[in-house]
Amino acid sequence: MKRRSVLGLLGLGAAAAPALAAQKKAAPKYRVVLQVSDNDPARWTLALNNAKNVQADVGAGEVQIEIVAYGPGLHMLKADSPVAGALAGALDASVGLIACENTMQNLKVSRDEMYGGIAYVQAGVTHIMRRQQEGWAYIRP
Amino acid sequence: MKRRSVLGLLGLGAAAAPALAAQKKAAPKYRVVLQVSDNDPARWTLALNNAKNVQADVGAGEVQIEIVAYGPGLHMLKADSPVAGALAGALDASVGLIACENTMQNLKVSRDEMYGGIAYVQAGVTHIMRRQQEGWAYIRP
Amino acid sequence: MKRRSVLGLLGLGAAAAPALAAQKKAAPKYRVVLQVSDNDPARWTLALNNAKNVQADVGAGEVQIEIVAYGPGLHMLKADSPVAGALAGALDASVGLIACENTMQNLKVSRDEMYGGIAYVQAGVTHIMRRQQEGWAYIRP
Repeated sequence: MKRRSVLGLLGLGAAAAPALAAQKKAAPKYRVVLQVSDNDPARWTLALNNAKNVQADVGAGEVQIEIVAYGPGLHMLKADSPVAGALAGALDASVGLIACENTMQNLKVSRDEMYGGIAYVQAGVTHIMRRQQEGWAYIRP
Repeated sequence: MKRRSVLGLLGLGAAAAPALAAQKKAAPKYRVVLQVSDNDPARWTLALNNAKNVQADVGAGEVQIEIVAYGPGLHMLKADSPVAGALAGALDASVGLIACENTMQNLKVSRDEMYGGIAYVQAGVTHIMRRQQEGWAYIRP
Repeated sequence: MKRRSVLGLLGLGAAAAPALAAQKKAAPKYRVVLQVSDNDPARWTLALNNAKNVQADVGAGEVQIEIVAYGPGLHMLKADSPVAGALAGALDASVGLIACENTMQNLKVSRDEMYGGIAYVQAGVTHIMRRQQEGWAYIRP
C-alpha cells in the first residue's frame, strides 16, 4: 500500500515498482539521474557508458542510476532502437530506463512500440526535477 | 528596501522585481532553472515545452520556473526570435525569461533588441550556479 | 596523510593535490563543476568563457571551478587542443582542468599527449556526480 503511494508521488508506473523496491533495499551511497533529450544514438551510447562507468568506479551496489529519455531523446528507448542490445545490458545491471509519456503522446508512440521492461513517468522533465530535489545528482551527457 | 537588496544579491535587474515578488507569495514546492545555451530553435521550443509540461504536471502554482539564455542561446530571447510567440505564452504563465548581459555585450545586442518583459542578469552562468546553491533543480534541455 | 586520503576519495591523482590545497585555503563561497562531453571546440570555448565570467562576476577568490572533460569532450584537454592557449589562461586563473582516464584508455591516449598541468580522475562522470553530492553546482555548457 505504502509502496504504491510513494511510487505514485514519484510519478512512476507499476512497471517500475519491483526494480525500485529492490534498489531501495541496497541503500546506495550515490544516486544519479542521466538525461537523454537528444535524437542522437552516439549520445545514447555515451549515457549507457556513463552508467556502466559509474557502476564500475564506485561499485554497482553503491549507486542507483536512472536514465530518463524525453523529447527528441525518446527514440532511445523504443523497441527498434539502434542501442536496443545495450538497453538489455543496462536493465540486467539494474539501471532504470524511464520513458516520458507526454512525449509518447506527442509522437503518437504506444507502450507496445517501446523496449520491454522499461518504466514510465508522466513527464520526464518533472521526474528529473523531483530526483534532484530528493538529492540525486544530475548528469546531462 | 529589503527586496531590492535580495534582488541585488541574485544579480537581477529591476525589471525582474515584480514578477519575482508575485512568485514568492506563491511559495512553490518546486523550483527549477532551465538553461538555454545553444543557438538552436528546436531546443528553445523544447525548453519552453519543458516549462509547460512541468506546470501541467505539478500545477503552475507549485513550481517556480526560470529559463536562462546565455552564450549562443541568447538569440532565443531577442525580439525577432523565431519562438517569440511562445515567449509571450511563457511570460503569461509566469515563467521567468532571463537574458545574460555579458553575452549581450559580447554580441553588441542592446535591451531594445530583446523581447519585451524579460529580465536580465549580469552573467547567466552565475545566476544558474546561484540558483542551484539556493536549492533549485537544474535542467539543461 | 589526511590530504592524500581525502584526495583519494575524490578520485584525484597526485597532480591535482597542490592546486586543490591552495583552493581549499580560500574557502570559496561558490563551487561549480563544468562538464565538457562534446567534441566541439565552440563548446570548449564556451566552457572556458563560463569559468571566466563566473570569476569576474563573483570574484575569483569566491568560487572554486573545475572543468571535467570526458567522452567525446576529452580532446579539449589534449596538448594539441585548438584551445590550448585558453587552457594556459584557465590554469593561471586556478580553474581546475580534469581529464577522464577511462576515456583516455578507450581512445588509447596517454598522459604524454595531454596538456601539461591538468589533473586526472578515473571516471569523469563519477567525479561530477560526487561533486554534486558534495554541494557543488553543475553546469553543462
